[in-house]
Formats: sequence, structure tokens, C-alpha cells
Amino acid sequence: MIETPYLLFLGDAPDQLAAKVAQGIKDWRPENAVGQFRLPGCGADLKLQDMTLAEAKEAGAKTLVIGVANRGGVISAAWKEVLKEALAQGYDIASGLHNLLRDEGDLVAAAQMFGGTLHDVRVPTVWYPIANGKKRTGKRCLAIGTDCSVGKMYTALAMDAEMKERGMKSTFRATGQTGILVTGHGVPLDAVIADFMAGSVEYLTPDNDPDHWDHIEGQGSLFHVSYSGVTMALIHGGQPDALVLAHEPTRTHMRGLPDYDLPTLETLRDTALPLARIANPNVQVVGVSINTQHLSDDEATAYLEKVEARMGLPAVDPYRHGAGRLVDALGAL
Amino acid sequence: MIETPYLLFLGDAPDQLAAKVAQGIKDWRPENAVGQFRLPGCGADLKLQDMTLAEAKEAGAKTLVIGVANRGGVISAAWKEVLKEALAQGYDIASGLHNLLRDEGDLVAAAQMFGGTLHDVRVPTVWYPIANGKKRTGKRCLAIGTDCSVGKMYTALAMDAEMKERGMKSTFRATGQTGILVTGHGVPLDAVIADFMAGSVEYLTPDNDPDHWDHIEGQGSLFHVSYSGVTMALIHGGQPDALVLAHEPTRTHMRGLPDYDLPTLETLRDTALPLARIANPNVQVVGVSINTQHLSDDEATAYLEKVEARMGLPAVDPYRHGAGRLVDALGAL
Repeated sequence: MIETPYLLFLGDAPDQLAAKVAQGIKDWRPENAVGQFRLPGCGADLKLQDMTLAEAKEAGAKTLVIGVANRGGVISAAWKEVLKEALAQGYDIASGLHNLLRDEGDLVAAAQMFGGTLHDVRVPTVWYPIANGKKRTGKRCLAIGTDCSVGKMYTALAMDAEMKERGMKSTFRATGQTGILVTGHGVPLDAVIADFMAGSVEYLTPDNDPDHWDHIEGQGSLFHVSYSGVTMALIHGGQPDALVLAHEPTRTHMRGLPDYDLPTLETLRDTALPLARIANPNVQVVGVSINTQHLSDDEATAYLEKVEARMGLPAVDPYRHGAGRLVDALGAL
Repeated sequence: MIETPYLLFLGDAPDQLAAKVAQGIKDWRPENAVGQFRLPGCGADLKLQDMTLAEAKEAGAKTLVIGVANRGGVISAAWKEVLKEALAQGYDIASGLHNLLRDEGDLVAAAQMFGGTLHDVRVPTVWYPIANGKKRTGKRCLAIGTDCSVGKMYTALAMDAEMKERGMKSTFRATGQTGILVTGHGVPLDAVIADFMAGSVEYLTPDNDPDHWDHIEGQGSLFHVSYSGVTMALIHGGQPDALVLAHEPTRTHMRGLPDYDLPTLETLRDTALPLARIANPNVQVVGVSINTQHLSDDEATAYLEKVEARMGLPAVDPYRHGAGRLVDALGAL
């Protein structure tokens, strides 16, 4: 649907975490990332070549992908200038922002003038049903986090990739704009109307072969008061058979909520498991996924060993060390 | 905003529960309910006078209120006939259905022709913020249910009425179409976009006097897989100081989910309290609200005594016996 490859627009991202959409594309579809475009003051760097619009166009880029989050914000004048110039140079634009491209009159006008397409991947394109809670065939795995942005999507993508490598039946099910941009389809869950959240997850993860696994992209956290409702809908709509606990050990408070501490992995497990059992009495916590990107190799190894001993579960960084042990843990289910 | 009084349209409601919007208006604003309008086969009866459109018009009705739920459904041809005739006779129409009046071309045309107004109270009219989780001044009480439709709204309305009678500072905060139709304002929470649910509840229940109580209308249930995400957002956005457990003792399974059992009140308490403490560490469960409408007087009294002894909390049916003891229980906070 969205023409590839992409030029990844990082704008004036305050930090690396704000550019996680672009990072996800680069990490999971590197062949689609021709380069990065940054504005002055940008605090993110994907270690891709910095390119002008013209340079990237010459390198084959078809779509300018807005690869940076703006927290409930607006599309700034500085961004607009680049986006309009991109349209003038023949790009399409794809965005997962709440603030829609299609709501910006000047972008719509420029797109019309130059024949470009504006893709708002956050907008649901389906009339989702209300969840019916019926038990579905096939297996489902969901990563749930102590906080937002701790590696839930990476965990699901890594487990899916590992299973595919092993020749197992597996599908990554995208529930956010990054996942949708990476895989080309999914449910933009945080933009779904409240009553239909769980139903949209049921829709996304339908009946399947008994030995097929859906790896559902997690969202938010039960402990993040801004987004916990979305997480709850994922747990009940997804009716997972397996939960993976996801954590980023250097986080000092809940993302965006300076007054809120992160829960322990034990608290996350003990909170999530009874809630997940409502939809699937057989659900089990199968492993722990630690995002060790801010730890050295030695620190990461030591931390994972400690968590593994403490929790009695395989604890890995699937991005750094592969998801093999997490996939092994699914075998028992 | 919506002109009163109303003629309450019950349509072909399959049962009494399906007409809970109309019942709520009749119970809490009886002065606004001129009569009821029923179609053949209607299984609901508000014990209001059945009136034709013309009779109700003559009795002063200004707005035809659709007082019946249709589960994610459509506006049928039989309904349309009545709605168009009502517009022709000079009524406005108000509706809380997902299926919007404004999306029905023939209703829009009739409204324009006859100068009537179509009110879709389910549609959010505010651009809600993302929740910031900051501690707000004032007190908040939230009823949480073992299931949907067990009396959470009635509990909040009754506690609000009782506090007002005592001269205490109190506001009922509507989060659903019935509450909004009853009070004239609120947040249509189940129609809010997922990411903004908790923020909309923060918006609805802002800083207030230290001795002021918001009685927040509950929605769904943590144990109802179709709507648990909405309930979660209410708990975290509302950051309640007090929780009231709500239950309907004759329910044999979760509403609309035949394969799902109701939790016990103990399980509800033990599940909700740790989740509520994330947003407000001081939250307490102060009482139990039992919907005894399907019990005799003796049965109700016996059941309430049993629950009160079991839970160690005041247990009342606020609609049948008044909310005095629940309001008393807030006094300690």
C-alpha cells in the first residue's frame, strides 16, 4: 500500500526514543530505509546517511515517512516546509501521528497539485466489531511492559522472525503505527474508539491453525495511567496463551509521568496474570524480555542472569541476543 | 442544550435492560419525561403513559429521545419512520447510539426541511488531552462493577443526590449517553479515541475544593472483556479516592458473554484496588452497592446483610434504600 523505499524524516526529535518509529523501520526493514532527514536541533540519529530530499529521491526513495512521535502535538511550520517540498519533489508522505496529514489544508493542496498521496496509517480503515470474547483457535503471544516504550514491539518482531526461521507458523500482528509501517497492515489501536478496542484486537488475531502463533504488538502498560486502558483491551481482546514481561532497567520513572515509579517484574506478573486469565484461563508467563540498549555487554549479561534467577523464567534481550529462548519457552504450551 | 421535556422512544427494545437510557431519564429527571413511545413487540415498559407523537407534542414534549440501546447496530426502517414523522411534527431528536443520526441522510434531510435539531450525545465535542496523571485536589468516588449494567450510574447519581440533600459539595460526572442525557453534559467515554480515554476523565474531573466530591459514572467492568479497557481508563484517569463495588446478584453470566462467569465481590475488590492504587495510593473500597431490582424486599434485605457481614463494608441498594450509608462511609476519607 505504501510505496517503498522510504526516506525517514526525524524532524527535530528531542531524543532517540522520540524517533522509535523510524528506528523500528530501520531495524526490521533496513532494505526500505534509504536514509534519514533531520532538522536542526534533532537529538536522534539512526546512523543512516543524512540526505536531502533530492539526494534520497535520486537514491530511489518513494515515500517520506514521518518517523518521529509528537506527543498529542501539532505539525509545526518547520515540518510543513519539508513536507510540502517533498510533495513538490514527487514524494508520497506516510505518517502515524494523531495529528493527521489529511487535516492540514496546505498539505492536502500540495498533494493534489503534485499528485502525491498522504498516508495516515493511524486512522482505522475498518469498522471494528465489539469484542465477543469467544475462544479462538491458534495460539497468541503478547508482550506486556512495566512501562511504555520498553521493547514490546521488538520482542514480538524478534519472536516472529525466529519462528519463521525455524519454519514454524507465525504472524506479527501490528497494533501501532510503527508496526503498521514496518509490515504494511494492522490495527492502529490507540486511535480506535474505546468501545471497539478489544474487538479490533479480536479482528486482528482471528481463528488460525492450532500450531500457529500470533505475536501481538503490545501497547502502553497496565501501570501507565495514560494508556493502561489500551493495554487492558489488548490483554482481553488478544486472549493470549503466553505473556512475555518486558522491561527497560535504566528507566527511573514511568515515561512522561515523573511522579510514577515503575513496578517490579513480579508486580507486573502478579497484576497481569489474573487479568489475562479472565479471557484465557490457561495463559502463562513464559519469559522476560529486557531492553538492554543502555547497558554494556557485561552489564546486560549480569542483569539478565539476575532476572532469570529471580523470576525463574528465561530472561533475554531478544534484539541483542536473539529470541530463541523465548520461542523455546512457547514450546511447552 | 437539549430542549426539554422529552418523549422517550423505546422502539422495539427486546427487554427492560435495553431501555436503560430511558429508564435513567425517567428515574432521575422524571419532570423531563412526558411519556413513552413504543413500537409493536417492545419488551420494555417505563410505566409512563404511552403516547403518540401528536399527544406528547400537545403535552409539551420538545425532543424525542432515543432511550434504547442497539448493540453496535443500525437504525432500522421501522425506527426511521417514527423519527422522520417526529421531525415533521416539530420535534428535535436526541440519541446516544453509536450509529449517528447525522450519518443518516434521510434524517438529516428531514431535520433541515422541518428545522429540527439532531443531537448525537455520544459524539465527543472536545479535543481531550492525553492523561498526565498529576494528583488533583478534591475527592472522587467511582463505582466499579462485577459486570456491565449492574447499577454503577445509579449508585453515583444516588450518592450525588444524597450529598446535595445534606448540603455537601458534590457533582455527578457523566461518562455515558444516559448520564449525559440526564445531566446535560459529560464525556461520552466509550466513543473517545483510545489514547485519550484517561485524559478525558481527568478533564471531566478537574481540581476542586478539598471537600468536594465528584461522583464519576462507571462504565463496563474490569471483568467484561469487551469493555474492560474503558473501565481501566476510568480508574486511572479518575484517580478515585473511594471505590464502591457494584453487583447484580441474579446475573448468571457476564452480560452478552455467555461463557464468562461473574467474579465475586472479593475478587473484584482484590483486582481493582491494586490497579487503582497506581493512580491514587490512598484509594479505599468504602462500600458495596447491590442492584436488588430482581429480589423481593425480604430477599434484598437478607442478601444485603449477608454481603455486609462477608465484606465488612456497608452494603446497600442505593436506589431502593437510599445512598445514606455509602455517603457516611466517605466521611472517613
